[in-house]
Amino acid sequence: MDVTVAIDCMGGDHGPGVTVPAAQAFLRHHPGSRVILVGREDALAEAIRRAGDGLGERVSIQPATEVVGMDEAPANAMRNKKDSSMRVAIDLVKEGRAQAAVSAGNTGALMAISRFVLKTLPGIDRPAIASAMPTLKGQSYVLDLGANVDCTAEHLLQFAVMGAMLSATVAHVERPRIGLLNIGEEAIKGNDTVKQAAELLRQSGLNFHGNVEGDDIFKGTTDVVVCDGFVGNVALKTSEGLAQMLASILREEFGRSPLTKLMGLVAMPVLKQFKGRVDHRRYNGAALVGLRGVVVKSHGSADAFSFEQAIYRAAEAASNRLVERISERMAAVEGVTT
Amino acid sequence: MDVTVAIDCMGGDHGPGVTVPAAQAFLRHHPGSRVILVGREDALAEAIRRAGDGLGERVSIQPATEVVGMDEAPANAMRNKKDSSMRVAIDLVKEGRAQAAVSAGNTGALMAISRFVLKTLPGIDRPAIASAMPTLKGQSYVLDLGANVDCTAEHLLQFAVMGAMLSATVAHVERPRIGLLNIGEEAIKGNDTVKQAAELLRQSGLNFHGNVEGDDIFKGTTDVVVCDGFVGNVALKTSEGLAQMLASILREEFGRSPLTKLMGLVAMPVLKQFKGRVDHRRYNGAALVGLRGVVVKSHGSADAFSFEQAIYRAAEAASNRLVERISERMAAVEGVTT
Repeated sequence: MDVTVAIDCMGGDHGPGVTVPAAQAFLRHHPGSRVILVGREDALAEAIRRAGDGLGERVSIQPATEVVGMDEAPANAMRNKKDSSMRVAIDLVKEGRAQAAVSAGNTGALMAISRFVLKTLPGIDRPAIASAMPTLKGQSYVLDLGANVDCTAEHLLQFAVMGAMLSATVAHVERPRIGLLNIGEEAIKGNDTVKQAAELLRQSGLNFHGNVEGDDIFKGTTDVVVCDGFVGNVALKTSEGLAQMLASILREEFGRSPLTKLMGLVAMPVLKQFKGRVDHRRYNGAALVGLRGVVVKSHGSADAFSFEQAIYRAAEAASNRLVERISERMAAVEGVTT
Repeated sequence: MDVTVAIDCMGGDHGPGVTVPAAQAFLRHHPGSRVILVGREDALAEAIRRAGDGLGERVSIQPATEVVGMDEAPANAMRNKKDSSMRVAIDLVKEGRAQAAVSAGNTGALMAISRFVLKTLPGIDRPAIASAMPTLKGQSYVLDLGANVDCTAEHLLQFAVMGAMLSATVAHVERPRIGLLNIGEEAIKGNDTVKQAAELLRQSGLNFHGNVEGDDIFKGTTDVVVCDGFVGNVALKTSEGLAQMLASILREEFGRSPLTKLMGLVAMPVLKQFKGRVDHRRYNGAALVGLRGVVVKSHGSADAFSFEQAIYRAAEAASNRLVERISERMAAVEGVTT
């Protein structure tokens, strides 16, 4: 893919020690691509020296003197840190020098800065956060995951358009099926907002499957699951908590005695295979969609493998024209539903 | 425990074939208790005959000629089926002949009939559905799980009182910690309703921990997690979906070849131990709280072991005076917050 990704190398829990090797791995796996590493020059130089083997002309460095703190108030980061690595990475997208930006930094600040610098697309009131989640059939995109606490039916419709185009461009699903998250499959269930959203979705020309319930996310009933940011965030975090609990109980049981440890050793190849299939690191990289540019948020705690997936998702979205496709689709939907 | 439980034997996917043996097992494990089996006389007689060994005077039968269908509209079940096993079981609680009722039938109908027959407690606007969920530390009660889609801050406060008393009476937690489900731990996050509810909870005299996030449910951060019915239902169903997906992938991986099957056989004792600890059947039995009587809803697909847990939870709540304690606590809370 022929695309340049701006990387906020200072964000996240690990900074350049993770982001620079991840960028390097990404370039190795994607020969046509380029990256711009953004951050403090000394920190970047050190990380590049450690990472060894030169990446040649496909890497460039864009200095930025400031860093947005993980707990910093978004408004403060936006107003007072104009030379932060996060801001400079987004500026590169705005200026057209990069086609996408990736950061493992503070989510609120990334959203605020992206919205301020890039602006939303025509017809989009609010950007959303969307992430792929593993399912029995592959993956589904779920949005919004926490950017928008109170949503109208129109917002949910906009999320559906953004999710559909994300599924089309990054997961290459031709006509993504859209599910509306509700508490019963019957059309009469749910609150007024969801009922109105279902009506809008039926008229939208999107491939609307209808209502889905929480368990449909992991069944893979639809390619996209739409909900407000409160519900989406709770669903995401609840899933993370359950997965952690199960992993921890499984470890405890296999660690109970020398005998159970031996059993664990014997079953290791299967357990590894299992872990690989449900590895949340493979799904790292939540897209901030609805903006005039591609921005992807990595988990703050991502390792190099995980951060590379986020870079890949950003590059894939950019090279498959995510922004343009959302924009075109929004125009089509607005013609039908208004 | 010295308590009589009315059992809707006809509800659920399996009917008397499961509910009668479950009642029998419950009586065997709890010598002081009694049950009233409610349903069609012929079906009950047949199930009792099959179950063998007589249960003596601790069992009585209350005939009911009708059955509420699993997909029947709640309003229809309430108005037109006055001799349904579900209705008769609730009537027995109302008349004081039983201290609790259990049903694996249609949730909507059970809620509608319970509310109509038993009425809500003073100070409670709406009953809620509460269930225990397994955590790293034991179990937490989560409510509401779907009875109330739109909630005010006052409703959430009432749920907190009901959840606290449920935790105190059934899980025997002395001063249950209450968590308010939100999308960030900071007090500024979340929607207006949740922010107002936090304010009410701080003044309530309950042991209010503060905001919790989705992953805190399984971490066991608090003994009770309060949320509106839309969010709670999504969290519950999403967890069920994830658990099913993980189990199904694990089975697939162990079933892949003769070698992996052998590995599974070796690891079986540990896998069984693991399964036992996270077995959802142990947590069967969601309480319909806020009513002037104890009503517990079992999963429709419950087997005898699972249905017995639901009977046990109902008996435990009744013998520890759940209804009276919610009522007393509501009076105390109302004095403080208004």
